[in-house]
Amino acid sequence: MGIGSNLPLIDGQRLWDSLMESGRIGPGKAGGLRRVALSDADGEMRDLYGRWCEEAGLSVTVDAMGSMFARRAGREDDLPPVLIGSHLDTQVAGGKYDGILGVLGGLEILRTLNDRGIETRRPIEVVNWTNEEGARFNPPMVASGVFAGVFERDWALAREDDDGAVFGEELKRLGYAGEAPVGGREVDCYFELHIEQDDALERLGIPLGIVTGGYAARGFNIRFEGETAHTGPTPMAKRRNALAAAARVLAAVDDIGWKYAPEGKATAARCIAWPNRLGILSEWAEIIIDFRHPDPAVTAKMVEEGMAALEAAAEKTRVDYEIIQRWSFGDENFSEDLIGLVRGAATALDVPTHDMFSQAGHDAYYMSRITPTCLLFSPCRDGITHNEAEEIELAYTEPSVNVLLHAVLARADR
Amino acid sequence: MGIGSNLPLIDGQRLWDSLMESGRIGPGKAGGLRRVALSDADGEMRDLYGRWCEEAGLSVTVDAMGSMFARRAGREDDLPPVLIGSHLDTQVAGGKYDGILGVLGGLEILRTLNDRGIETRRPIEVVNWTNEEGARFNPPMVASGVFAGVFERDWALAREDDDGAVFGEELKRLGYAGEAPVGGREVDCYFELHIEQDDALERLGIPLGIVTGGYAARGFNIRFEGETAHTGPTPMAKRRNALAAAARVLAAVDDIGWKYAPEGKATAARCIAWPNRLGILSEWAEIIIDFRHPDPAVTAKMVEEGMAALEAAAEKTRVDYEIIQRWSFGDENFSEDLIGLVRGAATALDVPTHDMFSQAGHDAYYMSRITPTCLLFSPCRDGITHNEAEEIELAYTEPSVNVLLHAVLARADR
Repeated sequence: MGIGSNLPLIDGQRLWDSLMESGRIGPGKAGGLRRVALSDADGEMRDLYGRWCEEAGLSVTVDAMGSMFARRAGREDDLPPVLIGSHLDTQVAGGKYDGILGVLGGLEILRTLNDRGIETRRPIEVVNWTNEEGARFNPPMVASGVFAGVFERDWALAREDDDGAVFGEELKRLGYAGEAPVGGREVDCYFELHIEQDDALERLGIPLGIVTGGYAARGFNIRFEGETAHTGPTPMAKRRNALAAAARVLAAVDDIGWKYAPEGKATAARCIAWPNRLGILSEWAEIIIDFRHPDPAVTAKMVEEGMAALEAAAEKTRVDYEIIQRWSFGDENFSEDLIGLVRGAATALDVPTHDMFSQAGHDAYYMSRITPTCLLFSPCRDGITHNEAEEIELAYTEPSVNVLLHAVLARADR
Repeated sequence: MGIGSNLPLIDGQRLWDSLMESGRIGPGKAGGLRRVALSDADGEMRDLYGRWCEEAGLSVTVDAMGSMFARRAGREDDLPPVLIGSHLDTQVAGGKYDGILGVLGGLEILRTLNDRGIETRRPIEVVNWTNEEGARFNPPMVASGVFAGVFERDWALAREDDDGAVFGEELKRLGYAGEAPVGGREVDCYFELHIEQDDALERLGIPLGIVTGGYAARGFNIRFEGETAHTGPTPMAKRRNALAAAARVLAAVDDIGWKYAPEGKATAARCIAWPNRLGILSEWAEIIIDFRHPDPAVTAKMVEEGMAALEAAAEKTRVDYEIIQRWSFGDENFSEDLIGLVRGAATALDVPTHDMFSQAGHDAYYMSRITPTCLLFSPCRDGITHNEAEEIELAYTEPSVNVLLHAVLARADR
């Protein structure tokens, strides 16, 4: 930012210290985090975040999906709040910044307003959305999805992990089955700051990405039903090996990804089967696949090819299939108004910005369906994320949080 | 058998009752059995089998791999014993007869000799081999394999199941970590009666199959090492998705099976991956594949194509791989001498026989490497096995056990 600027700025070291303290809760095996939603580690982090919020004089409300809203009152406190947020949960082998920066950056903004004694017209809330990653409970972004009316609350609370643990029960176990209704209240707008998850900003040497659109992403959870039989004697033509059907689809999906590369991506994300054993053909298998492209029309073509491969695999292997879940994101529009405020704040602070598309799902996607929404990126090293080696540097992160601070301030005083 | 024959015959009803009693231990979900090796159910069945053997006056010895040998003394008891056997463990969704018929049929033969007061020159032993199926502990046929010197005992005892339970510890837990050395003693010969696991005998209306050779089977356990990364932003060319590599190989294996059908078979048997989750590329995956053909030269060609597919998949996905286990069976030669005795007994009893190849692995394969071995099949309904719907009928089973009785008698008096 410009030398001699007298605009309020965050305390970068305090933000970094909070990130480091968070980075010790739920350690992975290689320096990162394994803090999947509603694990003991997630509970511990929630407790710490709640204490921090209370120490900052914020009032914390937990909704029935476990999302935590830390509120700083406005002068006109009945006005709908400006909401800032992201998520504190991680992948099973995740990093210390993904999502976490968005929540702790929001907290740092409110701490800064406290330090400076700055009042705002509107209240400001910082939210920690439950289970953004979907690493333990499928689907991802489920709590913001319920908030935005995309998913039914009771359906979401009934989701089970691989061991049969139930989302709603795990919330209760950790003391985060809150009483506040999920959504159903007016929100003035939603800001989310997230690490980029690619290396464009780092390559350009620009500390702030403004997301102007998303990759159109379409995902499918598919179940195959075949039949067990003895591997040795059962001829190919009599087999109904669900694992073979699953593998054929996963391989075809990878091929489709390559066909539409470099812009397009298609992912063999998950495969489980039963009995999944030597000597016996598998009775059932389940897979998760997805297709992503910046142009929704191309994504639709990829999906069409994927569905044809699914049909062909099922026929070849004599296996039945059912698409048990479809999901979609990336077509959402972000708010030109909010983006304008961000551009203004960046100019005032002399922070260069870069317009870009988001390639991953974020809570901001669902929120954009119900309120003006702005998604911002800050750089991450080598674009490595969802990996324990994920790294950021404070010097390239601090400017993005300061821009967010001023965009939020402008909106909260509107 | 011929009317008026005065040859000793088994008590078919007693055999059937024993099979039915066994069929209640470790019930599956659809009328069959889930009695995987060294489970509580396997322990219960072992206890029952041990009691039955003792009630029949047999002395039971358990070796360090947990295999149970029930011995009926011979007149010249120092001579190497005639061994009959198979296994009492099942697949996770298995039937009530596979393997079990071979053990309980052997016991019925000794009960019959007792009833008739028939002494034999050589001792006769009936063996229940531990973990033939390999459904819980990989590899299959591991205890007969150690007995035959194919696997190292300590390596086998250190095998772990998916939950980390150790073979040797599970043996101790159930009280079947025996003190007898594994193998290292002379065995006169080995007979194994097994259900066919295909429908050839049923279609032909013939109650006894004489196995004259095996399908050459080659199996591979392969581990892929890739790298986690975020699904959304990571372009295809930068991915190292271990699950995509695994799926490509499994799909190629299925293709190879079809290419060499109907005689050839290739199987996508197993796939596990980690994290195996939406939103993150998988760091590692493990698969089991196998190739089977009656002509070893063709099996070799199938393997060659499989290895080329493995190479191509690893290159395309930028994933490393390691073949962590190779296994092979089906090239073994069965004993012409023993087959001659079986043909003689079948003629005397007027039981039609059919020469055939075995398509599945059996303990007899490994035993054939160290002693004259004979593998016999009896019919199973519709060829359905490794499935809870597996069925046999006593009327089509009894003749095969009677032929075995007389072949064993002839050999034991040799």
